[in-house]
Amino acid sequence: MSEETDCAVEVTRGAVVESRHRVHVAVVDAGGRLRAYAGDPDLVTYFRSAAKPLQALPLVEDGAFDRYGLTHEELALCCGSHSGSAAHTAVAEAILAKAAVSADALACGPHPPFDDEARRALEEAGLAPGRVHNNCSGKHAGMMMLARVRGWDPDGYERPEHPVQQRVLAEVARWTGLPLEAIGLAVDGCGVACFAMPLRQMALGFAKFAAAVRAGDRGPATVAQAMTEHPEMVAGDGRICTALMRLAAGRLFAKTGAEGMYCVGVPGAELGIALKVDDGASRAVAPAILGVLRELDLISEDDLGALHSFAYPDLLNTRGEAVGQVRPAIHLRAPDA
Amino acid sequence: MSEETDCAVEVTRGAVVESRHRVHVAVVDAGGRLRAYAGDPDLVTYFRSAAKPLQALPLVEDGAFDRYGLTHEELALCCGSHSGSAAHTAVAEAILAKAAVSADALACGPHPPFDDEARRALEEAGLAPGRVHNNCSGKHAGMMMLARVRGWDPDGYERPEHPVQQRVLAEVARWTGLPLEAIGLAVDGCGVACFAMPLRQMALGFAKFAAAVRAGDRGPATVAQAMTEHPEMVAGDGRICTALMRLAAGRLFAKTGAEGMYCVGVPGAELGIALKVDDGASRAVAPAILGVLRELDLISEDDLGALHSFAYPDLLNTRGEAVGQVRPAIHLRAPDA
Repeated sequence: MSEETDCAVEVTRGAVVESRHRVHVAVVDAGGRLRAYAGDPDLVTYFRSAAKPLQALPLVEDGAFDRYGLTHEELALCCGSHSGSAAHTAVAEAILAKAAVSADALACGPHPPFDDEARRALEEAGLAPGRVHNNCSGKHAGMMMLARVRGWDPDGYERPEHPVQQRVLAEVARWTGLPLEAIGLAVDGCGVACFAMPLRQMALGFAKFAAAVRAGDRGPATVAQAMTEHPEMVAGDGRICTALMRLAAGRLFAKTGAEGMYCVGVPGAELGIALKVDDGASRAVAPAILGVLRELDLISEDDLGALHSFAYPDLLNTRGEAVGQVRPAIHLRAPDA
Repeated sequence: MSEETDCAVEVTRGAVVESRHRVHVAVVDAGGRLRAYAGDPDLVTYFRSAAKPLQALPLVEDGAFDRYGLTHEELALCCGSHSGSAAHTAVAEAILAKAAVSADALACGPHPPFDDEARRALEEAGLAPGRVHNNCSGKHAGMMMLARVRGWDPDGYERPEHPVQQRVLAEVARWTGLPLEAIGLAVDGCGVACFAMPLRQMALGFAKFAAAVRAGDRGPATVAQAMTEHPEMVAGDGRICTALMRLAAGRLFAKTGAEGMYCVGVPGAELGIALKVDDGASRAVAPAILGVLRELDLISEDDLGALHSFAYPDLLNTRGEAVGQVRPAIHLRAPDA
């Protein structure tokens, strides 16, 4: 197999690998040194929701966290792509109430909750999902709260020229070490700006953030503490961010993004990891990041065993039979010295 | 870009290609000569539902078509991965009735219909989808009919050792030019056997089938006629097989398969095409095959324009905004002489 293709997630059926998801990885330390990689660590793609910890940081830095008495649980939801469970929407409503804005002001579009129970409850009640069920509603509520604390009109907060988005962009630029004009902008699934840059720069952002957490800088430390104390607010039951952070018990903070993105910060090692499934497939993300973390010895063989259903999910057919498996086939490289 | 990666379907967001689906292609003539390719034409993967025209052929060859008075519409459904619309399930029930078997005898598991109207109707009536809604129920009904005409007990027709599956396997081997023991077997999404082999062999199967259609051999000609006269039974409204065969008006027969498979037979040119999206993504299949057909000049620029929404589908966000596009970036190669 060529150098380019040997880091992948494989999908087997019977004895044959039926499909293959190629994986790009950049592992960077806080000094900006590439420590390991796979595929193209300079691949330019979008940060998507993996950027949320950076997007949420101004809430602490600019005083909203203190002024509005945000709880760690609420701050975690601002960093999250939640499942739209009853618990998640209740926390989103609490943030909206503290910011004195209504759920109608959310710019994110509605989609059915990922959470089975919440989705069934809506269907049985004959109700359509609302904007508050959007997995990004915590981030959006936080953005309106940021507008409030800065004295900006929240109206149009989702537009790239609004001061909220300019403030968030500056934060993303600060951590990733890029000039503003080097960051590509497009519209995310939820309607706000998302950021295009090389994977290596996203990894640097998480590495610097992790180093700041280790150093005890209040903003990053508060965000990371919120995420690792309330991993159920960052995603939800049965989802990789929640399961991984529960297991890691504060050793790392982790955030998925649409189209196959995943980023991890490791305060103890001052490392950042950015991972992209080339084709964007969500089924490959958890096997890929768990394979990478194991190869870097950031999780143990026992940890991997505890997360087996995420790393090696069965492929079921319409009869409910296990007919194949998704599995990591991760090979990281050391950069030339 | 390296040789390996330059045939793909790209997913853009704003100005950046966010994700990339690599595509393998084999274009083979009825004499077995590779005429064009991309990626690895010898990639071993599963034929999946793209094999259905070959799997349905024994219905004609072994006399069920005549004895039970199958209509072309019914035969097309036996070759199809239908949408579970009311029209589709009615035709499936008609085949089951002619074979004197009940829908309960179907071995395929239930799944919600692809067809929006049928899915909503079930939900509103509080009904669970049945086995007859499975997209493969036509194939399964046909397999029980094959058992009937051959005097075999239909019970257990889905198991690989059952004479129905042995008969189908022999047919697949005959067209693809492989010895039985060279075909890998696994369990398909619907519970019957599926077949692993190199893409080149699948393409050969479709090329030989196409040549037989051109020569007027009754079995293949009947199957191809059924598919091209009733493309709505091979898939459904809004789906690529149906739209492509409607447009081509008999010039080709085409069948999709799960995990990114697509096969086309072109009687006039005695060509077969087998295509695999490496990662199995369904969103890449229509752009990929339409790009290939255009590059081979098997559809015109006008045809491509008529199928624009299949070749270049918009990517919408939760607000319903078009934020990107899926688009073919197909480059076929000529094999070394």
